[in-house]
Amino acid sequence: MALIEDLKWRHAVKAYNPSEKVSQENIEKIVEAARLAPTSSGLQPFRVLVIENQEIKNKLSEGALNPECMREASHIIIFAAWNRYTAERIDKVYDFTTEERGLPQGRFSAYTDKLKSIYLQEDAEVNFAHTARQSYIALGLALAQAAELRVDSTPVEGFNHAHIDQVLELEKLGLKSVSLMYVGVSDPSRDWIAPMKKVRISKEEFVIEYK
Amino acid sequence: MALIEDLKWRHAVKAYNPSEKVSQENIEKIVEAARLAPTSSGLQPFRVLVIENQEIKNKLSEGALNPECMREASHIIIFAAWNRYTAERIDKVYDFTTEERGLPQGRFSAYTDKLKSIYLQEDAEVNFAHTARQSYIALGLALAQAAELRVDSTPVEGFNHAHIDQVLELEKLGLKSVSLMYVGVSDPSRDWIAPMKKVRISKEEFVIEYK
Repeated sequence: MALIEDLKWRHAVKAYNPSEKVSQENIEKIVEAARLAPTSSGLQPFRVLVIENQEIKNKLSEGALNPECMREASHIIIFAAWNRYTAERIDKVYDFTTEERGLPQGRFSAYTDKLKSIYLQEDAEVNFAHTARQSYIALGLALAQAAELRVDSTPVEGFNHAHIDQVLELEKLGLKSVSLMYVGVSDPSRDWIAPMKKVRISKEEFVIEYK
Repeated sequence: MALIEDLKWRHAVKAYNPSEKVSQENIEKIVEAARLAPTSSGLQPFRVLVIENQEIKNKLSEGALNPECMREASHIIIFAAWNRYTAERIDKVYDFTTEERGLPQGRFSAYTDKLKSIYLQEDAEVNFAHTARQSYIALGLALAQAAELRVDSTPVEGFNHAHIDQVLELEKLGLKSVSLMYVGVSDPSRDWIAPMKKVRISKEEFVIEYK
């Protein structure tokens, strides 16, 4: 029950100790869990940006709901999804997959043709709704990995996406920010939620069984 | 590196052995990981439906992309999100949280007022886009929990949502299906993807660092 214990241990930290850093080794493990996340058709339609630079953190935190929390965290991990699917992006993933598996080129072309026929006729916003969803799988796994390492973290959705996108020039990368994950060492004197009981709805209410 | 090893172990199973069942104990652990998932403002705006009943599995599989896989899996877990936010739903969560934490009633009313002022003016589709995203965090954790238990699974997005919603009468529950997770025991003779190398884009391409 390791994962369950890890999930019970974690909470969304509200204040970090600015003088404590998370090790590069631990950051790499957290990001690795995100990289290994399963995604629709294996397209991995998002990237993670890891911000350790204090000046960039300060800039990103302008206008944030809880700017101290963002500035004082050791690292900010930004999940940013493809702003749209393109034939090039899809082909690149499948060309690489084919090569890595030692399969003949074009082995998946019927499948990628189908993906293209669906995604490329959709509006960019519909594409992005799909790519953004995939990134949440990775966010969940990154939070679980941090918890396994007993690294404190905060998942964050409520932020000015346009500001983050602009500071990091995400448009140039064909990306749009979706969620943030602050990582650091909690400051117990200001992390007011830490002593509170973790609350989840009951199993009876959460699960509906059809035996 | 337990989680990372678990994620490397898993793959999206393409065929299950219909005569093998996953234990109730393991199903409960998988669902528990989903229940413990963090969600925006702690609202947990989704439920999981666990289908073991063969007749219902058969009905659900009608018109599916890979109906054998769905019918032959031991259990189908359906992630279904709130079709919209309502004042009642938000209040119910926060009344329960307040009670569980032994806090005075109304402790979070300024916060819930803010949530309501945002969500209740949005269209149902905008609400659902948000509730659906949350369920992906739980899907990721459920897949990780299955992997920790060495239980085979398949995350599934490509299905006829209207059909699933209708068979399970999800509208009556104020829910809409988002994703599926098949759980069972892989049939190695037909699970063609099992021997193939797991492929992910390189760390260098996936991560962008700002030191």
